[in-house]
Amino acid sequence: MSFNSFGRVFRFSTWGESHGPAIGAVVDGCPPGLALSEANIQPWLDKRRPGTSRFTTQRQEPDQVRILSGVFEGRTTGTPISLMIENVDQRSKDYSEVALAYRPGHADYAYDAKYGFRDYRGGGRSSARETASRVAAGSVARLVIPEVRIRAYLVELGGDTIDRAAFDDAAIDENPFFCPDRAAAGRWETIVDEARKAGSSVGAIVECVAEGLPAGWGTPLYAKLDSELASACMSINAVKGVEIGDGFDAARLTGETNADPMRPGNDGKPVFLANHAGGVAGGISTGQPLIVRIALKPTSSILTPVETIGRDGQASDIRTKGRHDPCVGIRAAPVLEAMVALVLADQKLLHRAQVG
Amino acid sequence: MSFNSFGRVFRFSTWGESHGPAIGAVVDGCPPGLALSEANIQPWLDKRRPGTSRFTTQRQEPDQVRILSGVFEGRTTGTPISLMIENVDQRSKDYSEVALAYRPGHADYAYDAKYGFRDYRGGGRSSARETASRVAAGSVARLVIPEVRIRAYLVELGGDTIDRAAFDDAAIDENPFFCPDRAAAGRWETIVDEARKAGSSVGAIVECVAEGLPAGWGTPLYAKLDSELASACMSINAVKGVEIGDGFDAARLTGETNADPMRPGNDGKPVFLANHAGGVAGGISTGQPLIVRIALKPTSSILTPVETIGRDGQASDIRTKGRHDPCVGIRAAPVLEAMVALVLADQKLLHRAQVG
Amino acid sequence: MSFNSFGRVFRFSTWGESHGPAIGAVVDGCPPGLALSEANIQPWLDKRRPGTSRFTTQRQEPDQVRILSGVFEGRTTGTPISLMIENVDQRSKDYSEVALAYRPGHADYAYDAKYGFRDYRGGGRSSARETASRVAAGSVARLVIPEVRIRAYLVELGGDTIDRAAFDDAAIDENPFFCPDRAAAGRWETIVDEARKAGSSVGAIVECVAEGLPAGWGTPLYAKLDSELASACMSINAVKGVEIGDGFDAARLTGETNADPMRPGNDGKPVFLANHAGGVAGGISTGQPLIVRIALKPTSSILTPVETIGRDGQASDIRTKGRHDPCVGIRAAPVLEAMVALVLADQKLLHRAQVG
Amino acid sequence: MSFNSFGRVFRFSTWGESHGPAIGAVVDGCPPGLALSEANIQPWLDKRRPGTSRFTTQRQEPDQVRILSGVFEGRTTGTPISLMIENVDQRSKDYSEVALAYRPGHADYAYDAKYGFRDYRGGGRSSARETASRVAAGSVARLVIPEVRIRAYLVELGGDTIDRAAFDDAAIDENPFFCPDRAAAGRWETIVDEARKAGSSVGAIVECVAEGLPAGWGTPLYAKLDSELASACMSINAVKGVEIGDGFDAARLTGETNADPMRPGNDGKPVFLANHAGGVAGGISTGQPLIVRIALKPTSSILTPVETIGRDGQASDIRTKGRHDPCVGIRAAPVLEAMVALVLADQKLLHRAQVG
Repeated sequence: MSFNSFGRVFRFSTWGESHGPAIGAVVDGCPPGLALSEANIQPWLDKRRPGTSRFTTQRQEPDQVRILSGVFEGRTTGTPISLMIENVDQRSKDYSEVALAYRPGHADYAYDAKYGFRDYRGGGRSSARETASRVAAGSVARLVIPEVRIRAYLVELGGDTIDRAAFDDAAIDENPFFCPDRAAAGRWETIVDEARKAGSSVGAIVECVAEGLPAGWGTPLYAKLDSELASACMSINAVKGVEIGDGFDAARLTGETNADPMRPGNDGKPVFLANHAGGVAGGISTGQPLIVRIALKPTSSILTPVETIGRDGQASDIRTKGRHDPCVGIRAAPVLEAMVALVLADQKLLHRAQVG
Repeated sequence: MSFNSFGRVFRFSTWGESHGPAIGAVVDGCPPGLALSEANIQPWLDKRRPGTSRFTTQRQEPDQVRILSGVFEGRTTGTPISLMIENVDQRSKDYSEVALAYRPGHADYAYDAKYGFRDYRGGGRSSARETASRVAAGSVARLVIPEVRIRAYLVELGGDTIDRAAFDDAAIDENPFFCPDRAAAGRWETIVDEARKAGSSVGAIVECVAEGLPAGWGTPLYAKLDSELASACMSINAVKGVEIGDGFDAARLTGETNADPMRPGNDGKPVFLANHAGGVAGGISTGQPLIVRIALKPTSSILTPVETIGRDGQASDIRTKGRHDPCVGIRAAPVLEAMVALVLADQKLLHRAQVG
Repeated sequence: MSFNSFGRVFRFSTWGESHGPAIGAVVDGCPPGLALSEANIQPWLDKRRPGTSRFTTQRQEPDQVRILSGVFEGRTTGTPISLMIENVDQRSKDYSEVALAYRPGHADYAYDAKYGFRDYRGGGRSSARETASRVAAGSVARLVIPEVRIRAYLVELGGDTIDRAAFDDAAIDENPFFCPDRAAAGRWETIVDEARKAGSSVGAIVECVAEGLPAGWGTPLYAKLDSELASACMSINAVKGVEIGDGFDAARLTGETNADPMRPGNDGKPVFLANHAGGVAGGISTGQPLIVRIALKPTSSILTPVETIGRDGQASDIRTKGRHDPCVGIRAAPVLEAMVALVLADQKLLHRAQVG
Repeated sequence: MSFNSFGRVFRFSTWGESHGPAIGAVVDGCPPGLALSEANIQPWLDKRRPGTSRFTTQRQEPDQVRILSGVFEGRTTGTPISLMIENVDQRSKDYSEVALAYRPGHADYAYDAKYGFRDYRGGGRSSARETASRVAAGSVARLVIPEVRIRAYLVELGGDTIDRAAFDDAAIDENPFFCPDRAAAGRWETIVDEARKAGSSVGAIVECVAEGLPAGWGTPLYAKLDSELASACMSINAVKGVEIGDGFDAARLTGETNADPMRPGNDGKPVFLANHAGGVAGGISTGQPLIVRIALKPTSSILTPVETIGRDGQASDIRTKGRHDPCVGIRAAPVLEAMVALVLADQKLLHRAQVG
């Protein structure tokens, strides 16, 4: 079964393959009356767009979005918002090798095992190109939650971590790595350059913080805020791990060190003295900043030949010659922001539904 | 909004509070004709049952399950299977303190923020007691996937990790920690005893391996096998992180070291030379063992007073005097197994729906 | 596939068979803080309860409901509300005939064709006994929509229709037929008595009017208010037709005669000069009374032998000796009210989710 | 809330407004490997296309469909199938009147009441133009159920019914009314011509028969085959009633006359001696022909002025000058076929999921 919709009441569905004529998203359940035009969406797509630095794939895609429905006189109408992005640079190359053999680490074998055959051009539906549709949908979600500020950035690349003491929010947009630590950004330039030149690839860890959401969002027990985030994050290409707050490190704390004590705040809301929980308790937001972290494996496309088998079951070697990101984790930052926005918009509306 | 159902076509819904008269699950969409009686469910509940060793909560619950519907003449009929477990040991204690003040790390404040008030007795709906319903539902799911063998075990407790070289599958059921390393199990006895005596608590990491599932299960892009597992895992009480395969460590590998090369197998299926991916590619099973890992924070109930605020907004301190698990991660192992079984049963049926 | 949940955000799931130990419903997504006890539910169950007059089945069921979760200190908590009704009068009779042969008009053959076998005792899951669970759930839904007044009544029984000019709202509760026309109620007594004595059965048409709902409820295009009502109504046992407003008669009108002209009202809302539409336009409520009508076939259980086949494929005759309603349409009135309440509660919350 | 998806595992979502740049559907969950090109879809769109006779709206739309995803090398891949139809004849007319006043019978007032404002051009989202997307999606559904033959036809128009004795399947495609009775088709020509010339409109009743589906499809209790059909049918523009089998007439039968007796068939399946049930029992197909009937009100757009109010709450009169169908029921026949196909494809896959 394919299942290409996400969300409960604020929902989006995506469609499209890497090398088809276009990709797109349909956003359903959006509140009416929100000011929306292509200009609200394009900047977010541009952040994710390939080909903007030598550290990402050289595929040239303008990623121009078109709104085909759901907006009238500059405002959302409450009906489905259809967003389309034409594929421009589906370079006509020779796909005979990937058509016949499975690239390890890619979804090639799994798609064939499931569906019997696959669109092998550029990864087809399993390509990270689909994430452009998520970013487009996410930019609509942002309009639903104006009270929330979302920032995603890399905290580790190729095993090299940032210095939290050197964290500068302003640095994030100054380098091609969405890196909040300028010194780390400098080192990463070397790491990615070397991986790229070697036809290799590296992994990354991306963190996302959402501030401004109130206490009370979340839909226990099976659409908890953190469950929905985990699902949303794990659905992003190349993600192998998801953490909330202290994540795996929380398993090494004691009850005392993990506690987030509360003090009375000036506005009637509590002031928390720590945020090990990452802003979620019992699947519900606490009003603290929401902290999500995802681990991305290194891009599976590498120039070094890897042992594999063909569709015919015969042994062969394969090296991936096409354009690719040496670190797929970099462009995952705007995608993670989009997915967090989409989850939060949905949870805000769900909360409003039940509690008013 | 509360949302207490999980699954797409094999679905379960749970209900019940820690100190209400009963808890239960309704399993819907189960294939007909499967042999099922209470005897199929009870052993799994017994594995999770509290009060069986000094390392878990001393609440005494027989956790006797009753099947109220969906089974006729010993076989599932294809209609909803209602499972009920009566609460027996809802010790009548004084809840006035937790009624008035928020226990940090617990869902108390978040539930009040969301719903306006809460059932404060033993954590109400947010209590880990609800996981008994999952285990009951999971035991039905196991019948749907007889080809799959699922084992969960602890790989770390209180920061102390097992020695993978000493891994012995047979050891898991020999100690109260579901620990596959006998030496580690010995050390953990001390760790948990000390935490318990100190009124403190420790965290844990639980791993689950599912073997025998074929390649092809998974529902891309938004009900991918790993997305669904991530959601299922993160919904378990106290879980703060989820990994598939190498998880966060994958972010430190290169494309070459992360590759899972394939060789032709004797049965027409590939033999994989590694399993960094944990049995999932593109959100679809590869036929390799499925590997999931979850991190659980230390139990939030501790005897050390923690700063907090009351419902009235005033500052206070709170220490949790009730019965509790010094390491909630221990009893999470059977719960994780149940959630993995529930996801796999659903994905099996979804795959059958689309591909036949 | 069985699918035993209804609703989008205010959802209920039912479980249980006619002759199992109990039946029940789980209501999820209910707003918190509503006053609820068994006393809110029991009166509605009593209206539907069998054995209260000679015109309904003689099965004696007290239909005592128990709330097992989701209510604390007399108010809904926002978590799942589990409702259970024990089956008391599962008369131990000889089911060997219905076990072996298919009763025409019943679901016997279809259930066997689908699931391979069936719980044949009293119709199992396909019994109208399940509708008690709907009435219980519906009584919770009523609390969510206090602004709405719902009345269902029979407008036709055994082909005999009421006189609209004699319609008296007060009459509905004065006779065992939920008939608003006292003269018709008198005639129906004879019709049902004769059918009962002859071991025959008759059909009925039930109408439901909901007043007080505002304009704006409904979820186009595929969860329109009327679509959801149609689905809800058609799921009731023995229903073969659903109409909104003028229904089939609308097909015989012209655009001019079918129009519902509007005039300015004193409160800023329009005054409609007619209500052919039955309170819905474009799948959204208009603020006029909502009018739904359902047709129920005669009870399939009759004493006259009918040609059928057995599970072994052999020809036989069957007559249904058990207790049954001579007109299943009578007790459908409280069930229809419940289903309308359940749809409206869901739509109210959905509207609040999107529009606030 | 808007909710623009239909189906459980074979799902489609539609988007687009009457006068936007395009409309479309995304079909998700389609089995892989089915031969599909635009040529499979276009003939069904052509049947529904406006402007093909003087009896339908004169809007000229070629309704050329484009497949944007989900098909590779002429076969479905199992991933979402995006279908787009550009709007060509969005005649630039003066909408100032409909922008300011509500057309009775249309969704104008209800949309404003719900969303606060609306796309008033040609009815926006509430226009029957959206049904082209359903027909496109339905043509994909047909590929999933090759064993089923679906035919829809009008049985009544403007109050004039067909003679069942004169029913000729071959006649349906010979006249612009999808009328199986040639004599009735002749009379209807006059009826529609007169309505058109008078600026009036008439209603219709459309019947759909699906043959070839096996016993066993249907998803009780809340996605019963007939419930899903009722929901699907009632979601079609202008539909006010839905019947299965004998429908409302069943309410006038006795248990004896309504019975569908069974005799042993030659192939091990039963032979039914009647089909009052319309092919469904207990929400599950019986293997008999499925019979669905819908009532459509007369088109609300008429030239006779009708009393109404404006957005400003002031009284006014409105007459609808635009192009419209004098009998919207005519073009509903291919739409009904599409909806039945979409329900059946979904139910086939659901059945396969649970029962294999």
